[in-house]
Amino acid sequence: MPSSPIRKLVPFAEAAKKKGIKVYHLNIGQPDIETPPAMFDAIRHADIKVLEYSHSAGNESYRVKLKEYYKTVGIDVDPGQIMITTGGSEAIIFAFMSCLNPGDEVIIPEPFYANYNGFAVMAGIKVVPITSGIETGFALPPIEEFEQVITPRTKGIVICNPNNPTGYLYSSAEMEHLRTICLRHDLYLFSDEAYREFCYGGTHLSAMQLEGMEQHVVLMDTISKRYSACGARIGALVTKNKALYDTAMKFAQARLSPPGLAQIMAEAAVDLPGDYFDKPKAEYQARRDLLVQRLNAMPDVYCPNPGGAFYAIARLPIDDSDVFCQWLLESFSFEGQTVMLAPATGFYGTPGLGKHEVRLAYVLNLEAIGHAMDCLEAALKTYPGRI
Amino acid sequence: MPSSPIRKLVPFAEAAKKKGIKVYHLNIGQPDIETPPAMFDAIRHADIKVLEYSHSAGNESYRVKLKEYYKTVGIDVDPGQIMITTGGSEAIIFAFMSCLNPGDEVIIPEPFYANYNGFAVMAGIKVVPITSGIETGFALPPIEEFEQVITPRTKGIVICNPNNPTGYLYSSAEMEHLRTICLRHDLYLFSDEAYREFCYGGTHLSAMQLEGMEQHVVLMDTISKRYSACGARIGALVTKNKALYDTAMKFAQARLSPPGLAQIMAEAAVDLPGDYFDKPKAEYQARRDLLVQRLNAMPDVYCPNPGGAFYAIARLPIDDSDVFCQWLLESFSFEGQTVMLAPATGFYGTPGLGKHEVRLAYVLNLEAIGHAMDCLEAALKTYPGRI
Repeated sequence: MPSSPIRKLVPFAEAAKKKGIKVYHLNIGQPDIETPPAMFDAIRHADIKVLEYSHSAGNESYRVKLKEYYKTVGIDVDPGQIMITTGGSEAIIFAFMSCLNPGDEVIIPEPFYANYNGFAVMAGIKVVPITSGIETGFALPPIEEFEQVITPRTKGIVICNPNNPTGYLYSSAEMEHLRTICLRHDLYLFSDEAYREFCYGGTHLSAMQLEGMEQHVVLMDTISKRYSACGARIGALVTKNKALYDTAMKFAQARLSPPGLAQIMAEAAVDLPGDYFDKPKAEYQARRDLLVQRLNAMPDVYCPNPGGAFYAIARLPIDDSDVFCQWLLESFSFEGQTVMLAPATGFYGTPGLGKHEVRLAYVLNLEAIGHAMDCLEAALKTYPGRI
Repeated sequence: MPSSPIRKLVPFAEAAKKKGIKVYHLNIGQPDIETPPAMFDAIRHADIKVLEYSHSAGNESYRVKLKEYYKTVGIDVDPGQIMITTGGSEAIIFAFMSCLNPGDEVIIPEPFYANYNGFAVMAGIKVVPITSGIETGFALPPIEEFEQVITPRTKGIVICNPNNPTGYLYSSAEMEHLRTICLRHDLYLFSDEAYREFCYGGTHLSAMQLEGMEQHVVLMDTISKRYSACGARIGALVTKNKALYDTAMKFAQARLSPPGLAQIMAEAAVDLPGDYFDKPKAEYQARRDLLVQRLNAMPDVYCPNPGGAFYAIARLPIDDSDVFCQWLLESFSFEGQTVMLAPATGFYGTPGLGKHEVRLAYVLNLEAIGHAMDCLEAALKTYPGRI
């Protein structure tokens, strides 16, 4: 089992704080946006005598509500095609375990969400990375590159759209390419759409909207980022493939049920006003604009403009992103402050890639991002491993 | 992945209810005892702006509290040896995945909690059952029977104490036997102690109290039954083995965190008055007494007196417990009522065992148990497969 590549820097951040240095956390996707108070109110007003196991697929009332929610984002599903999971994490684990046998393979465009590696180890499957580069802004690699790595053991492709860690938003044409590959080679398309609500400019096309892919697509969803409720641990596995759903239900039944109170919160969230997302989305967009502008204004730094989510990957003039990110915490400060970033090496499956790149999560307000960029700018001037 | 043996009867129960028949559910371990209101109050009064990921091992404040709780039950552990999990289920999954490689084996005295099978499939490991019989009241099989099935791939023994599904409470002598086997063959002892608080008569000896077993024991715990809070999904993996804990942390980090609000509830539960358990325990004991007395008063029925938990296994004069339990729902009623039981076949790993046994969960009040026993008594008189 691999260690979390992001968490290994935590002791250095703690040591920096002990020295009195303020650390701006751009390293993890924990948003600072307030969780809608209506979600907490729903629990406060719930009249529960016995906090029982819920249905293993989640409360039916919530799944009925989710059908409504999915309709608003152009996805047509029935409550019986929705399974509530303990966070998006469990949806991914169930999807892998239900669709693949140990030794089977999934193709994932890299850089990718590092925990896919851990979930693959849990399911005993192999992750085969194909590289998307910063030069193209992390666009989907061409079909030929997928086909070069397809083997008899390849069972699926995993995408995260919009993407963590790159922020890339796949175009309709790219989604059609994925459709072509999956239908041609009979592959599952595992689609992690945790950041669906946060797209800036482009249009989000869900894998669930791809025609003729009903038996191939598994949507892995979560309320963590949508409503800034990461700690609730409520996600969903959604699929129109009945055999797949029935298999996933066996895993769901073994673990009995998803969290009970959090389902009540999540159900209440579906009733938030239709314009609820306008504010957080505008906030994230303003942060993205500032972050990207500041990064690209630094000498020898390049950051493609991300189309969604709240992440960006930047190329820096540094020898080694792991060394640099540790150095920022251990040996650097600017006006008593520093910034914590995620080395991009942890997001690549191919060894050696990501050494000149870092991931930045714009989960802090504009002022904090400004200060964090001041720190980074100063750091790049004095970092001994600058290239 | 195996299906849940208990859930397969659910459609028949639903059909019976549609026909207007009242069904007494003695088939699942969902207690009717009220969840302590103080646990809900803790959430109502919590002032949370952003429901963030908690620490992957759970909130430190809760783990500090749990140290206190464990002290009251004679278990001496530090907060750093406690990992909060999503229900006891996740503690079992993490324990298996952290201690065993795919293909490794665990020995489990049967009948055992059926979901161990599912967790074993998830971890890619093999369950090797050894039989404990109803004649001995489901006592631990002798050491020799363990040693007969130990292979180079055997890595541990799983016990549930007091036991689900038998209600058996292991004696100090039996716990010492387990200690001997584990030390002699260098095996882990995975100890599921979900029902610790509900022991009637005997004394509960935790695996954590076995001397010299610090590196061998993994405690798999949960608040589900303790505080009648099954839907909270809060459990714990507890071990003094640091390497094991560190490995389990990698799995914990991959899934980010256990449920947030439920941890607040669980933390409040530790502050319940010291006599909190007196009432539910007395209630369960009265139910057990009634259930066992009624069962043993029926001709050709035998039910050993369970020492703990809220389950009993009874031997009935029937040809096939799966057929009988389905017949109870599909073809029988007594004064417009019937009873739902769990066929014991689902709890045995050895094919063919449990055909004459059922599990009864005494999670209903005395009056309901009385009616349920009336139904069972009448059913045994008319069941066509009576032997």
